[in-house]
Amino acid sequence: MASETPQTDLSSDKPLAERPKEGEAGPSKNALKKAQKEAEKAAKKAAAKAKEAAQKAQQEAAAGEDVSVGFYGELPLIGGPDFKPTGDNRVNLGRAAKEASEGKLSGPVSFRAQVINARQQGAKLAFLNFRQGTDSVQAVVAEGEKISRKMVKFAAAVPVESVVLVKGLLVKTQEEVKSASIKDVEVHVVELHIISRADSMLPLQIEDAERPLPAEGKEEEPQAAEGERPFVGLNTRLNNRVLDLRARQNRAIFRIKHGVTQLFQEFLNARGFIMTQTPKLMGAASEGGANVFRVDYFEKKAFLAQSPQLPKQMLIAAGFERVYEIGPVFRAENSNTARHLTEFSGLDLEMAFEEHYHEVLDVIEEMMLFIFDGLKTRYKEETEIVRQSYKVEEFKLPEKGKVPRITFKEGISMLREAGEEIGDFDDLSTPQEKHLGRLVLEKYDSDFYILDQFPLAIRPFYTMPSSQNQTSSSLPENQTPQSSATFPTPQYSNSYDLFMRGQEICSGAQRIHSPSLLRAQMLAKDPPVNPDGEGVRDYVQGFGYGCPPHAGAGLGLERVVMLWLGLPNVRLASLFPRDPGRVVP
Amino acid sequence: MASETPQTDLSSDKPLAERPKEGEAGPSKNALKKAQKEAEKAAKKAAAKAKEAAQKAQQEAAAGEDVSVGFYGELPLIGGPDFKPTGDNRVNLGRAAKEASEGKLSGPVSFRAQVINARQQGAKLAFLNFRQGTDSVQAVVAEGEKISRKMVKFAAAVPVESVVLVKGLLVKTQEEVKSASIKDVEVHVVELHIISRADSMLPLQIEDAERPLPAEGKEEEPQAAEGERPFVGLNTRLNNRVLDLRARQNRAIFRIKHGVTQLFQEFLNARGFIMTQTPKLMGAASEGGANVFRVDYFEKKAFLAQSPQLPKQMLIAAGFERVYEIGPVFRAENSNTARHLTEFSGLDLEMAFEEHYHEVLDVIEEMMLFIFDGLKTRYKEETEIVRQSYKVEEFKLPEKGKVPRITFKEGISMLREAGEEIGDFDDLSTPQEKHLGRLVLEKYDSDFYILDQFPLAIRPFYTMPSSQNQTSSSLPENQTPQSSATFPTPQYSNSYDLFMRGQEICSGAQRIHSPSLLRAQMLAKDPPVNPDGEGVRDYVQGFGYGCPPHAGAGLGLERVVMLWLGLPNVRLASLFPRDPGRVVP
Repeated sequence: MASETPQTDLSSDKPLAERPKEGEAGPSKNALKKAQKEAEKAAKKAAAKAKEAAQKAQQEAAAGEDVSVGFYGELPLIGGPDFKPTGDNRVNLGRAAKEASEGKLSGPVSFRAQVINARQQGAKLAFLNFRQGTDSVQAVVAEGEKISRKMVKFAAAVPVESVVLVKGLLVKTQEEVKSASIKDVEVHVVELHIISRADSMLPLQIEDAERPLPAEGKEEEPQAAEGERPFVGLNTRLNNRVLDLRARQNRAIFRIKHGVTQLFQEFLNARGFIMTQTPKLMGAASEGGANVFRVDYFEKKAFLAQSPQLPKQMLIAAGFERVYEIGPVFRAENSNTARHLTEFSGLDLEMAFEEHYHEVLDVIEEMMLFIFDGLKTRYKEETEIVRQSYKVEEFKLPEKGKVPRITFKEGISMLREAGEEIGDFDDLSTPQEKHLGRLVLEKYDSDFYILDQFPLAIRPFYTMPSSQNQTSSSLPENQTPQSSATFPTPQYSNSYDLFMRGQEICSGAQRIHSPSLLRAQMLAKDPPVNPDGEGVRDYVQGFGYGCPPHAGAGLGLERVVMLWLGLPNVRLASLFPRDPGRVVP
Repeated sequence: MASETPQTDLSSDKPLAERPKEGEAGPSKNALKKAQKEAEKAAKKAAAKAKEAAQKAQQEAAAGEDVSVGFYGELPLIGGPDFKPTGDNRVNLGRAAKEASEGKLSGPVSFRAQVINARQQGAKLAFLNFRQGTDSVQAVVAEGEKISRKMVKFAAAVPVESVVLVKGLLVKTQEEVKSASIKDVEVHVVELHIISRADSMLPLQIEDAERPLPAEGKEEEPQAAEGERPFVGLNTRLNNRVLDLRARQNRAIFRIKHGVTQLFQEFLNARGFIMTQTPKLMGAASEGGANVFRVDYFEKKAFLAQSPQLPKQMLIAAGFERVYEIGPVFRAENSNTARHLTEFSGLDLEMAFEEHYHEVLDVIEEMMLFIFDGLKTRYKEETEIVRQSYKVEEFKLPEKGKVPRITFKEGISMLREAGEEIGDFDDLSTPQEKHLGRLVLEKYDSDFYILDQFPLAIRPFYTMPSSQNQTSSSLPENQTPQSSATFPTPQYSNSYDLFMRGQEICSGAQRIHSPSLLRAQMLAKDPPVNPDGEGVRDYVQGFGYGCPPHAGAGLGLERVVMLWLGLPNVRLASLFPRDPGRVVP
């Protein structure tokens, strides 16, 4: 099979890599053949050398020269023909250290770990630090009955970041260990084998990747102070993401991100939602032609979904009642800011309701509080690890029923009182958004709030006009709102955004479920959207088959993680971020 | 905001729909403006007409002509300015019917439902059927003190598939109701309002969508027997998927699909895996140039990921230990079969192990049994609903520890004994796969089995060569296997496929974690893969930073659903399937 997921008929297809590449630039076949021969030669040479070394070690052992033979060295390739499984139990370092600290552990344990650093002290001692997950521990290799000087030397020379198999005693220390996360236990090594040797020159030191990036808007690469290591910027980190992701705070960030997805699902599953997968390949640019990626689709063109908006509404029209999706969202936007990605993870939900879209907004609000609460209680340790790097104030949480829910109109008033000049129906700029966030925090003591009833003109065509017929404050007081007997054209809409630390993380609305109103609204947009266009025709028609009133929302997963932790850049919350200038690694 | 998920700076961006479209064909601006005016005119006319009708009804009521005024009719648009919420409780039909059946319910209840059919019997009676989720119920509107003949007539004329608000008494029936899923209770309607009126002409009848499609390989559109409705084929159903998805078995299929995703996560979460999101936009066609979709990426080209294979392995190299992903997988394969899609959902996992790749295979096997067991116990009802349409034999499950795990070599022997002509290292054709499935079912009484130790040549470059040094049965018996001191080139590999009902649903392997062996294997492929090429460079380098041995797998979610239920086409397990000829709806 070509790649993991089964799709290809085994009968008809060779692995992808074996197929001829079409029009791809690359080294010539001859060059590769040559390289192939050289690699084979090198491999044979390496194998011969390894065999020789092993024989030499055996000879030395036979001559009684090294008491430690068999206790250290390089393991044969695991999975290769020379490796012999031992069936030994391997422990989790954190748990084993805790047992050792409580006096519940005796005898040596085995564990796999990565080498953080290794150094020799005199001829008889080597000190190492090992990493396993977010735990780290100090280790000593000391010359003794079964530990030769050669073994000490070997230990001190293990390249940083190599994966090793350690057998050792976990011993309580007299003094607190400063250089490791495990403070009261160290390892007295009895065996040490290299499972996977790291290159001796690494393009990025984990130590450097563990230093925080400057806050948004600050200099990217601050000058290093005297004696300090030079600061390593975001680009270098992202270019070497496999190493960068080993930084302790990164391990924690992605456990928290996992947590958000699980809490999201847990909450919605309990309320009868189902997880769905809607297509990312679309026959037409359904939400407008700009900012959409075009795909060569056999003889035609296809487009990458800018959101699951249309299909998720179609599922409501199909009678699914409550759906959610976790999936990639693609935006061909040439924005190079700290909060934009060209591909990010959308947490989308859509729900039929009975009488008022606030039934849905209440669910969303409760869901966010559930997620925050879950992060606070279940991911406390991870959050603390990140806060050790990014010293951001704790996220101020409102209680249930006390989430500030203010109308857009109210928000504008608050901004004006604070000196901002802004029109009634103007969209908020990013600085204005942040300003409003500060005002809400001051007034309500909450880093999370909801802005409801946005102006209709600044929302997409599928947004339900406001039921509240709010009049603008600039409307003369004696002027009555438009009669509701004819189709009203209210200035506001049944739509909302959610904010964390003054930045938008979620946008949603009641959708128009009346096909005639939807058509009218599409045509009323400037420029108008053609309701019979290929990308929207099936969507619009679906509402003509009977559709319940519904509302929903889309959250940006990376933004939730970024703002919960107060990270300075959304890229830090994406494993392999994509932006206009970056599609690798 | 343009679409749901927040990404765009509110400050700088208008909704996508408002932006000028680039190079999109469509009606001219003038034509749209004209249509817009006409729509406005039509909307005003409709509103005026509705107002008139309402006034007329009121006048009639005032004249005492209709005792039911206010008890039936069309509700104002929910969310619109004329709708007044009542705060009435709405019930779940299935639960309420059960309570009524047990005599625990008194008084009328309200519920929202969809009309399956409506007909009048004489002047005084109307019969309707309502649908809510997978439940359906029979209802009667009978002339009486508060129910006028006009209301009976209105009820009988509600277009099929309209969404209605019903108030009624749930009454135990004397005889079993044949036409509904709720057999012992019917609704005596007291109020009936249309929430969303369906078009009177539908392109597809739900009744037709509920009839099963023929088994694979059978005629697509069988001749209808005398008096039968004409058969509606797959294309018509998929073209009208919003209606098609209302079919009862479809509702059940996608609850089961949800179930698979949840069971997958539940099992892996409990074992310390975390959910990840890896990019779908790739800088190069990492697994070969064929069968990959090309994307216009700003001034450059990007490619859609054919699997998360490379990034998930990079996460193992980054020290993540155990990861999984649920995400779209793209294959630009021009295959028009019952089991191929161009976009499907991959359930991927990757895991570091200690000594043997069977540690991982054991986890995968246990996971599949957990999923099967969960489907059997938690999704029994849904499975039965689908089986009412697709009368497939129940999936035969092995017990834990008894899953047939046979080597590829053994599989070839079994096929040969059964008369198939096949070479030692030939890949299995689809018919051979199915044949082997039948042989395994006969021998082991299991619809699920694992084929292990595939020939190396038919697996991708990242597959670990076999540790077992199996010799081919065609090798002369006195010929010894190659020495393992030099790099061996075994015929087999540490790789496996999983099968359900004789079809592959999962492919996986131990991966090469040694950068030198990986390079050698890449170069040894024909044609060779350049280890320094843009798409794989970071991936290959990652293993030089120290990487634990690891293995993983990728499952095709739609295939698991299809084969669990025995559906005749994988498209039935995709909400909006994509194939070479279909990118809408």
